[in-house]
Amino acid sequence: MISDTVHPPVAAVREAVARALAEDLGPLGDLTSALLPPGATGRAAFVPRAGGVLAGRLAANEAFAQVDPALVVEWAADDGHEVVAGRPVGIVSGPLAALLTAERTALNFLSHLSGIASLTRRYVDAVAGTPAAIRDTRKTTPGLRALEKAAVRAGGGVNHRGSLSDGVLLKDNHLADLSIIDAVGRSRQAWPGRPVQVECDTADQVSEALAAVVELVLLDNMTPDDVAACVGVVGGRCLVEVSGGVTLDTVAAYAAAGADLISVGALTHSAPVLDIGLDAC
Amino acid sequence: MISDTVHPPVAAVREAVARALAEDLGPLGDLTSALLPPGATGRAAFVPRAGGVLAGRLAANEAFAQVDPALVVEWAADDGHEVVAGRPVGIVSGPLAALLTAERTALNFLSHLSGIASLTRRYVDAVAGTPAAIRDTRKTTPGLRALEKAAVRAGGGVNHRGSLSDGVLLKDNHLADLSIIDAVGRSRQAWPGRPVQVECDTADQVSEALAAVVELVLLDNMTPDDVAACVGVVGGRCLVEVSGGVTLDTVAAYAAAGADLISVGALTHSAPVLDIGLDAC
Amino acid sequence: MISDTVHPPVAAVREAVARALAEDLGPLGDLTSALLPPGATGRAAFVPRAGGVLAGRLAANEAFAQVDPALVVEWAADDGHEVVAGRPVGIVSGPLAALLTAERTALNFLSHLSGIASLTRRYVDAVAGTPAAIRDTRKTTPGLRALEKAAVRAGGGVNHRGSLSDGVLLKDNHLADLSIIDAVGRSRQAWPGRPVQVECDTADQVSEALAAVVELVLLDNMTPDDVAACVGVVGGRCLVEVSGGVTLDTVAAYAAAGADLISVGALTHSAPVLDIGLDAC
Amino acid sequence: MISDTVHPPVAAVREAVARALAEDLGPLGDLTSALLPPGATGRAAFVPRAGGVLAGRLAANEAFAQVDPALVVEWAADDGHEVVAGRPVGIVSGPLAALLTAERTALNFLSHLSGIASLTRRYVDAVAGTPAAIRDTRKTTPGLRALEKAAVRAGGGVNHRGSLSDGVLLKDNHLADLSIIDAVGRSRQAWPGRPVQVECDTADQVSEALAAVVELVLLDNMTPDDVAACVGVVGGRCLVEVSGGVTLDTVAAYAAAGADLISVGALTHSAPVLDIGLDAC
Amino acid sequence: MISDTVHPPVAAVREAVARALAEDLGPLGDLTSALLPPGATGRAAFVPRAGGVLAGRLAANEAFAQVDPALVVEWAADDGHEVVAGRPVGIVSGPLAALLTAERTALNFLSHLSGIASLTRRYVDAVAGTPAAIRDTRKTTPGLRALEKAAVRAGGGVNHRGSLSDGVLLKDNHLADLSIIDAVGRSRQAWPGRPVQVECDTADQVSEALAAVVELVLLDNMTPDDVAACVGVVGGRCLVEVSGGVTLDTVAAYAAAGADLISVGALTHSAPVLDIGLDAC
Amino acid sequence: MISDTVHPPVAAVREAVARALAEDLGPLGDLTSALLPPGATGRAAFVPRAGGVLAGRLAANEAFAQVDPALVVEWAADDGHEVVAGRPVGIVSGPLAALLTAERTALNFLSHLSGIASLTRRYVDAVAGTPAAIRDTRKTTPGLRALEKAAVRAGGGVNHRGSLSDGVLLKDNHLADLSIIDAVGRSRQAWPGRPVQVECDTADQVSEALAAVVELVLLDNMTPDDVAACVGVVGGRCLVEVSGGVTLDTVAAYAAAGADLISVGALTHSAPVLDIGLDAC
Repeated sequence: MISDTVHPPVAAVREAVARALAEDLGPLGDLTSALLPPGATGRAAFVPRAGGVLAGRLAANEAFAQVDPALVVEWAADDGHEVVAGRPVGIVSGPLAALLTAERTALNFLSHLSGIASLTRRYVDAVAGTPAAIRDTRKTTPGLRALEKAAVRAGGGVNHRGSLSDGVLLKDNHLADLSIIDAVGRSRQAWPGRPVQVECDTADQVSEALAAVVELVLLDNMTPDDVAACVGVVGGRCLVEVSGGVTLDTVAAYAAAGADLISVGALTHSAPVLDIGLDAC
Repeated sequence: MISDTVHPPVAAVREAVARALAEDLGPLGDLTSALLPPGATGRAAFVPRAGGVLAGRLAANEAFAQVDPALVVEWAADDGHEVVAGRPVGIVSGPLAALLTAERTALNFLSHLSGIASLTRRYVDAVAGTPAAIRDTRKTTPGLRALEKAAVRAGGGVNHRGSLSDGVLLKDNHLADLSIIDAVGRSRQAWPGRPVQVECDTADQVSEALAAVVELVLLDNMTPDDVAACVGVVGGRCLVEVSGGVTLDTVAAYAAAGADLISVGALTHSAPVLDIGLDAC
Repeated sequence: MISDTVHPPVAAVREAVARALAEDLGPLGDLTSALLPPGATGRAAFVPRAGGVLAGRLAANEAFAQVDPALVVEWAADDGHEVVAGRPVGIVSGPLAALLTAERTALNFLSHLSGIASLTRRYVDAVAGTPAAIRDTRKTTPGLRALEKAAVRAGGGVNHRGSLSDGVLLKDNHLADLSIIDAVGRSRQAWPGRPVQVECDTADQVSEALAAVVELVLLDNMTPDDVAACVGVVGGRCLVEVSGGVTLDTVAAYAAAGADLISVGALTHSAPVLDIGLDAC
Repeated sequence: MISDTVHPPVAAVREAVARALAEDLGPLGDLTSALLPPGATGRAAFVPRAGGVLAGRLAANEAFAQVDPALVVEWAADDGHEVVAGRPVGIVSGPLAALLTAERTALNFLSHLSGIASLTRRYVDAVAGTPAAIRDTRKTTPGLRALEKAAVRAGGGVNHRGSLSDGVLLKDNHLADLSIIDAVGRSRQAWPGRPVQVECDTADQVSEALAAVVELVLLDNMTPDDVAACVGVVGGRCLVEVSGGVTLDTVAAYAAAGADLISVGALTHSAPVLDIGLDAC
Repeated sequence: MISDTVHPPVAAVREAVARALAEDLGPLGDLTSALLPPGATGRAAFVPRAGGVLAGRLAANEAFAQVDPALVVEWAADDGHEVVAGRPVGIVSGPLAALLTAERTALNFLSHLSGIASLTRRYVDAVAGTPAAIRDTRKTTPGLRALEKAAVRAGGGVNHRGSLSDGVLLKDNHLADLSIIDAVGRSRQAWPGRPVQVECDTADQVSEALAAVVELVLLDNMTPDDVAACVGVVGGRCLVEVSGGVTLDTVAAYAAAGADLISVGALTHSAPVLDIGLDAC
Repeated sequence: MISDTVHPPVAAVREAVARALAEDLGPLGDLTSALLPPGATGRAAFVPRAGGVLAGRLAANEAFAQVDPALVVEWAADDGHEVVAGRPVGIVSGPLAALLTAERTALNFLSHLSGIASLTRRYVDAVAGTPAAIRDTRKTTPGLRALEKAAVRAGGGVNHRGSLSDGVLLKDNHLADLSIIDAVGRSRQAWPGRPVQVECDTADQVSEALAAVVELVLLDNMTPDDVAACVGVVGGRCLVEVSGGVTLDTVAAYAAAGADLISVGALTHSAPVLDIGLDAC
C-alpha cells in the first residue's frame, strides 16, 4: 500500500485552511477568546468520540499555525491509523486564546476528513481478501477535492480521476451521437497515451467496448450477477469497475463477482464526520 | 417564515463555483466532451432519485453560466420546496459539450446543499407543533459556510453564529480562568449590544448564568429531563438552546422539554447528499 | 477594558499587507533602493509627529517581514498606548534596501490605523466618567474593516456590527412596508438568538419598538434633549444608542443625556492620519 | 484638463468592490433585508449632505451590479463635477432587498472617493490662477491606490508616482552612503529614460542636484520664502515640487513662490468623507 | 482530429487575462490613452507579420471584454487555422481609448499562443504521413499551462500529462531505490486504472519495462537507430514515446524509426512568438 | 551597473510560484513520487546543458520551499553570472519525494528566466563599447512581467515601462486625432513630472517631437542610416530609442548609429530557454 506520508498538495492545504479561517474568524476575530486573561496558555487533546481512521492532520496543523505559529501540535497517530473512542490522538498547546480561536476550524477539517477515511476503511475491510480496490469518484465536496482524495487514500482506497482532464470516460450522453468504436477511435487520436474508459449498462455494450479496445469498462447500476457475467465476458482483457448503488451491504458481493475496482460516491459525498473533540488536559 | 428568496451572498456563490470548476476541469478541460461533434446541443432534466428538499439552485445556475453563458437553466421548484423521487425539478439546455462539462460541478453543489436542506427539514418536521426551532452550528464544511447556512434556512432551520465575531459564547475552556459573572461582565464591556450565551453542563451553571443576566443558555449534552428542569429554572428569563447528541429520535423529546432552540451539528457535517441526477430529455 | 492583545484576524492582516505591497512595489520593485550599495544595513525609529494613540503594529511588522524576513522590528509601545510627538515608539533594523522598500507601506498602515485609534480616544475621553461607550459603524474604508475595527478597540471604542450578517437593524427603508411589531416578529422567527435593533426618529417610534421588545433603539439625528426624553421613555428596558451628527463638541451632551452607546461614523471614515515618520537612527 | 472619462483600471474597481462586499455581507448576507416582502422594489436618490466634488461612480455602480444586475443606476453628474448639498446626483432603483444590501458598500466608496476629490478641489482652487498643480503622494489607503488616485484626478489634481517602480526619487536615506551626483549617475545607468527626482532640504542640495542634472527637485519642509529662493536657483532647469506641511492656508503662498507642483499627502490620507446619503424617492 | 472548438478551461482564460491586465494597466491605467478625445472610436485589424497558425483568440477576446464590454471582436479565422503574413485575421472596434489600453495584453496572448501553435504545426508537418503524433511536455511557462496546452492542440499536437497527478511516469531518480518491476507493481496497487510509463535509456530497460507490463516506454535521448531497435523490442506491446533533443531536423527520422509519440519541450518553452500586430483600418 | 541583489518584488515571486505549483501538482499531487520509500532523501545539482546567464534563483528557491521547507538549496552562482555547460551552478538536497515533486516547477522558472537573461546578454555584448543600452518592452509573457523584467536586468539590460501607468508613449494610433504638439501639451498638463516619449516613423516627426520638447523619441522600424540621420537631428536634446526588427545581426549597427537605447521585444517574447537539468549527485 502507498505510504502514509502521501499528502495532499501543500498549496491545496494552505489555501483551504486560509479560506476556512477567514470564514470562521469574521471581521472581528473571536469575540469570546478576546475575554481571556492576556498570557493564558492551554493544552488540549484531540479525542475521538468514536472509533475510525484518522485523516487531515496536515490541515489541522496548518489551522493552528496560521492563527499563531507559537501553537505546538504533536500527534500520537498518523493519517491512516485506526483510532479508538476516548483515546487521545494528539495534543495541541500554547497561547490559549489562539488555541480556542483555531479549534473549530482545525476540528472541522479533522472530523470531515477522518469521516471520509473511516467510511472508506469500512468499505475496504468489507472486501478484504479479494483483489478488489475501493475507489472514490468526482462527487467530492466543492473546494475540497485534493484533501478528500487524500483522505480516501488514508482510508485505504484509491483515487478515480482527479479532474476531467485526467482521462476519457465515455458515458451515455457522450455516446448519443457516436458509436463506442468511433468514440474510442477519436479518443486515441485526440488523447493518445491516456486511458479510455467506457460506462456500460449491458453486456452488449461491454462486448462493443472490448472490440474497441479500452483500458476499463465501468459497469453502472448492475446487480452482482450481471457483473459476474460481464467479468466473464471481459476475461481479463481490461479492468472492470463497478459503480452505482454500492453499499456496505452489497460491496462484498460485487467484489466476489470479480470487479477490479468498486467506486463509491458516498465516500466523499455522504460520509458522516468522525466526531473528534478537543479536551483540555 | 423567511422568504425562500433569501440567498447566500452572491460573492460567496461566485467564488465557490469558480473554485469547484477549476478543480474539476483541470488543466486540459473535459477530455471526453471534447470528442463530441461540434455544434451538438443537449437538454437534460434534474431528477431527484429520492424525496427531499431542494437547495443550491443559485450555485448550479452559476456553474453552467461560468462554463458557457449560452446554457439556459429553468427551474420548476424553488429552494426550500419539497421534491419527489423521479419528478424533474428543472431543465438545462444548450451546447452539449459545455453542458456535460459543467454537469458534475452543478450536481455536486445541488446534491450536497439539498442534502443539508433535506436533513434539516426532517428535524424541523420532527418538532412541528412545538415552538422549538432547529439551528445549525459552526461545524460546517470548510469553505462552504455561506452556502450551507443558506441550505439550512431552505430546510426551515435557523442559523447559529455565522462566525466567531458574531457574538459571545462562553464555554468550559473560556471559563477555566474566569467565573461566569466576571466573564459576562467583561463581555458586556467589551462587546456591548451583542448577545452573550453561556454553555452550561449543570443546573447550577444555569442559575449562575441567569444571575449574570445572559441572552441564552446552551445546555450541552443533557437528557430531555435535565433540560426540562433547566427550562423550569430559566422561567423565560432567557432563551434555552440544547446541543449535543440530538438525533432524529430524540429531538422531539428535547422540544417537548421546552427548549427554544435545538442545535444539530449533523445538519452540516454529516448530511448525506440528496441524490439528484441529470437525465437527457 | 479588553486586553490590548486582541488583534485583527491574522489572515486579514496578511492579505491586506500583501495587497498593499503589490500596489506599492509595482512590477519592477523599488527603483531607488536598487541603487544602494549591496549589503548596506540601516536602522530607523518610528517617530510620531504628534501625540495620539498607537495602532497597527501587526500590519507594520507584516509589511517588513513580507519584504525581507531579516528585518527586525522592536516596539516600545503597544497598540492602544498613548504616544508623544517626537518620542520614538519602535525601531526597525536590517538590510537597508528592504527597509526603505517596505517603509511607506508600513507607515501607511500605522498612520491610518493610529489615526483611527487617536480619534476614537478623543471621543472616549470626552465621555469619560459616564457609562457611555463610543462605537464605530459599518462606514469603514473598503477592504480594511477588520483592521479599522481593531484600531477602534485600541482607541478604547467598541464595535458595531462586523457585517450585515451579525444582527438585525431595522431602518426607515426596511419599515416602509412593515410595522415595527411585524418586523420584529419576523426577525425573532427568522433569526432567533440575535439582537434586534430599531432605528427611531421619534419618541413614538421608540415606544413602538419597546412594545415590540427589542435589544436596542438607535436614536438617529436627535438633539441631546430629545435623547434624554427617549432615555426616560426606555427606562432601562433596552440599550439606547445615539447616532448622526455626533461631534467632539456634542458627544458629552449625548452621554449626559443617558445614551449607552454613541456611534460615530467619523472614527473610520474621516479620521486624519496620526503622522508617524521613520527617522534613521 | 484630462477628460472625466479617465477611470481607474477596471480590474482594480472590480476587485476592490468584491472585497468590500464580502466584508460587509458576511456569511449570512443581510439579515435585515431578508425580512422584506419578496418582490418589493425600491428607488432611492444619492443626496450629498454637503457640497463637494463627485468621484467613485464606477465603484458604486459595480457594488450594485455585483449584488444584483437588475439594479439600475442613473447619474445626473459625472466624476469631477461639483455637487450641492441636498441636490440628488443619481438614482438607483430595482429589487429593494438587493438595493439595501448594496447600499452601504456603494456609499462607502462614493463618500470616501468624493471626499478625496473634494479636498483636492479645494487645494486646486486655492492655487487657481497660478501655474502650480496639486499632486498626491504614495500615502494612500492600503488597497485603494488606483481608486484614490483616480479621485485625485477627478478633483483636478495630478498623480505622483503610482508605485516605487515608476521613477527614481532620492531621499535622505538613500543619500547617506551616496553623493547626489553618484546616485543620479547610477540612476541614469540603471533606469535610463526614467525621471530622476531628488528631495532637497537646503538650497545647497538643490545646486548639487542641478549640477547632477535631474528632472525635478522636491523641496521638503521649506517655508515659502525658502522655496522662492530655490526656485530662483533652479531657474527653470527642472521642475520644482514642494512637499511637507502644506495646508489650505499655506498652499497659495507656495504656489506664489513659484513651485510647479505641490504635493499634499492629506489628499489621500486625511480627507474626510463627502457625506452622501441614499434617500428613498 | 479533435474539433477546433476545444478550448482551454474558461476559468483559466479569465484569470490569466485578469492577471495580465492588472500587470499592464498598473495603478493609474493607460496614461497615454487618457489623452485621447472623449468619445473617440477606433477600428483595427489583427495582421500577422509572418505565416503561422492562429491560437489564443479566446484570451484576446477576454482582454478586450475585460477592459470594455463595448469593444467588439470579429474573427476571420479560427484557432488552428493557418494564417498568412499581411492578411488580417480579425477586427476589433469600439471605444478607442479602451481598444488601445487592451491592445498589448491581447496581442501578448495571441502572439505567444500562436507562436506555440505555429511551431507545433511545423513539427506535425514534418512527420506527416507517419503515424507519429507530436506531444508537448510539462515544460510550460509558469501560470499558462492550460492555455499553452490548448495552443499545442490548435497546432495539431497532442497533450502529455496535464499535471503530476495525471499518471505515473517513472524516471531515473524514482528508480534509484526501486526496480522497474517493483515500481510498476506499486503503481498498479496505488493508482489502479492509470497509465504507467517508464523512461528508458537502454534497450535493457525497455525489456525490463515490458516484462513489468506498462502502457508506454519513453525513450530518452536515443538516436533514431536506437529508437528503431527499441521499437522492434517492444513489438507493439505498448506505446513508444521519444523525447530529448528532438529538433525539426531530426523529428522525421524519429517518426520513421517507429515512435508513436514524439515529445518536444521546445513547443512550449522555446517557441518564438508569431508576430501579430494591430493596424488601424 | 546595478547590483545583482536587485530582485523582482517578493510578492510577485511568491504568487507566481504558488500558481505554477498548483498547476503542476494537480488535485492528487505527484503520483510517481508517492511510490518512493518513506524517508528517502536526495541530492541533485543544477547543471546547465549550455552556456548562458543565470536568472531566476529566487523563484527556484521558492518552489522548493513551498513544497517542503526542509529542502535546502545552495547556489554557486548569482543571478547575472555566466554559466558554463556541464558545470553545476547549485545543489538542492533533502526529502527525495518533495525534491522530485518541485523539480519541474523550479526548472521551468530557472530555464525560462535564464533564457531571457542569456539572450539579453548576447545583445548587450553585441553593443559593448558603445553607450547604447539594451532595453526590454511590454511584450512579456502574461503573468510573469516582474520576473522577466528582473531577468532582463540580470542579463545586463534595462527596463522599459513596467506598465501603461509609468509614462506617456505617444504612438500612431494616439496621434490620429491629435498633433504631436497638442498631445505633448496635454501630457504635460495631465501627467506632469512624467517622461513623454513619442514614436516617430520619419525625421519630420522627430523634428516635430523636438519642437514639442520630449524626453525621448522612439524611432520605429528605421534603418541604421535613418537612425543616424535622426540622431543628428536630435543633437542630444533628448534620448533616442530604436525599436522594431532589431536582431543580433543588426543591433551593433543601430548602436553605431548613435541610439541611446535599443529595445528588443524578443528578449521576453521569443527567448529560448537556457536548458538547465537537475542531476542526482
